[in-house]
Amino acid sequence: MSDGLVLSIDGMGGDHAPDIVVEGVDIAARRSADARFLIHGDPTKLAALLEKYPRAKAQSEIVPAEKAIGMEIKASQALRQGKGSSLWNAVEAVKEGRANAVVSAGNTGAFMAISMFRLRTMEGVHRPALTTRWPNAKGGYTVMLDVGANVEANGEQLVEFAIMGEAFARAVTGVDKPSVALLNVGAEEQKGHEEIRAAAQLIRETGVDLNFQGFVEGDDIAKGTVDVVVTDGFTGNIALKTGEGTARLVGQFLREALTGGVMARLGALIAYPALQQLRKRMDPGTFNGALFLGLNGLVVKSHGSANGRGFAAAIGVAEKMARSHYREEIAHNLERLAHAEIAAAAKVGDAG
Amino acid sequence: MSDGLVLSIDGMGGDHAPDIVVEGVDIAARRSADARFLIHGDPTKLAALLEKYPRAKAQSEIVPAEKAIGMEIKASQALRQGKGSSLWNAVEAVKEGRANAVVSAGNTGAFMAISMFRLRTMEGVHRPALTTRWPNAKGGYTVMLDVGANVEANGEQLVEFAIMGEAFARAVTGVDKPSVALLNVGAEEQKGHEEIRAAAQLIRETGVDLNFQGFVEGDDIAKGTVDVVVTDGFTGNIALKTGEGTARLVGQFLREALTGGVMARLGALIAYPALQQLRKRMDPGTFNGALFLGLNGLVVKSHGSANGRGFAAAIGVAEKMARSHYREEIAHNLERLAHAEIAAAAKVGDAG
Repeated sequence: MSDGLVLSIDGMGGDHAPDIVVEGVDIAARRSADARFLIHGDPTKLAALLEKYPRAKAQSEIVPAEKAIGMEIKASQALRQGKGSSLWNAVEAVKEGRANAVVSAGNTGAFMAISMFRLRTMEGVHRPALTTRWPNAKGGYTVMLDVGANVEANGEQLVEFAIMGEAFARAVTGVDKPSVALLNVGAEEQKGHEEIRAAAQLIRETGVDLNFQGFVEGDDIAKGTVDVVVTDGFTGNIALKTGEGTARLVGQFLREALTGGVMARLGALIAYPALQQLRKRMDPGTFNGALFLGLNGLVVKSHGSANGRGFAAAIGVAEKMARSHYREEIAHNLERLAHAEIAAAAKVGDAG
Repeated sequence: MSDGLVLSIDGMGGDHAPDIVVEGVDIAARRSADARFLIHGDPTKLAALLEKYPRAKAQSEIVPAEKAIGMEIKASQALRQGKGSSLWNAVEAVKEGRANAVVSAGNTGAFMAISMFRLRTMEGVHRPALTTRWPNAKGGYTVMLDVGANVEANGEQLVEFAIMGEAFARAVTGVDKPSVALLNVGAEEQKGHEEIRAAAQLIRETGVDLNFQGFVEGDDIAKGTVDVVVTDGFTGNIALKTGEGTARLVGQFLREALTGGVMARLGALIAYPALQQLRKRMDPGTFNGALFLGLNGLVVKSHGSANGRGFAAAIGVAEKMARSHYREEIAHNLERLAHAEIAAAAKVGDAG
């Protein structure tokens, strides 16, 4: 690996690939002069696109891939037939140490499956977690995980998510000591699923180095009550999609209201720049980039429908993580967790 | 019970009681000339308020209660000390057959606990479910349950929720054959928790009379993909609160955008009537009224912060349900479910 940062890019993944991918790389290249990009995919198409983006061209290398994985292919199928695809090769570059991180806007299930298969989980991590950011009322972002990698998580796995999410928040949002809480249906100790209560107890007892705030509820995600909200992938996926759906619905209602009459249209026209600002603030592209945390390598998933700016935001997440100490921080806390668990097990052994 | 409809009202529950309660009763009274109201609470305060609302006064009877249950009291405490309170007496009127339904804006936990304790679950229902409506992109409402009565639900209980929610949707939204789906993290058969897959199988195998559409995801709630979304109380509570939080956040962003400069303010002023319409459309008051379904009696919970119009909406839900055949419909479907389960058990017995 060269001295600078190397990012492995799936050139063919996503609804608007390879165009928005190369556009995104160009934006990222302007931002980081020391970054290099390995763009995997159709060499003819990619070369033609790079001609349009000289800055991207100067910092990129095309790595030919013979095929691309479709958006509708199942994860199991991608594992069997994906070898040689742009997505597979992009992951492989991280596995082989040729790149610091991989970014793709392609098929989520295939991306997760191939990354799991090739990179494996970090020592001490049982299951990886899909991690994302939401804009919040405080003007910042709330980190949330797991938003869909695993349908279930036991207490120990939730604590691992908390440890990984905290390191992500520090690296990406820049908060020095991010606050962490578990998503629940009430703030009281005795509320919620057994797994959540077990996780809270484990965090408190094992002395894991976290700014732990106990439980928060669904509305705390948008409020920004804490920096990191931890949950299982089932609940997280449903919360994320419910939130996205609600935001879209309010947007639709607003459009309907502002096109519903002459005065409304006139008002909207005069307030147009402000409404454009609002639109930008709500655009998932500005906070694009979900991290598949807990693997031996950085894996960043962009929204499939991202535009160039959105894809550049996902590359930005990969960059920030790659330049951070997230790995050491996670390893350190996982060690504390493991030690405390061994001590607890020994105690039970003594008592028995 | 008189020939007409009798509604039992907790006069003292909620953040702005008894004022908004009596105001809400007045709106409901104007809407339904044949409805009568038993308002439980402080007789002096209620009598003074009724003087301001002659229509409410003409159709109401004050039932004195010696105390009120505070918003912060725990459910267990309410059960021990709640006797004689306006909330307890309001539930008791339904239990004793003096009213068709009870409505309160008071303490949710206390209301659920007292209702469970006094009214008990319907035959064939294992657990009651808190049921609510969300505005959706189709201009209607999506019914969702359970949004917080039970932290967990097995397959059979989810089917019971589906049966109850379907009857609620027909009675309150007027759809003849409401479509029903289970909330999940994907539409594929093999996705999600075991309980959800078990529920889907049970609905298909037992021939319960439902327009069943399989699985939907979080964003389908706001889309209005189906009329009734069924989930456990943990997931439902988090989805509901995440959605509410997101709607509030978008509202805050919109306010910030439209007060962020002279042009924005001017535009907002001109579009003011349209923005007021939007506000009304988003106001939870217009779809207020969560039903605690599955008990021997109709129990409707209003938002604690509801205004008079919101409280009247909750009374409207109680009225619609009371005038519907929901009870017979639910009983009929529960019977099918029970028969099918007995048949299935017999088959297993034969095989063994």
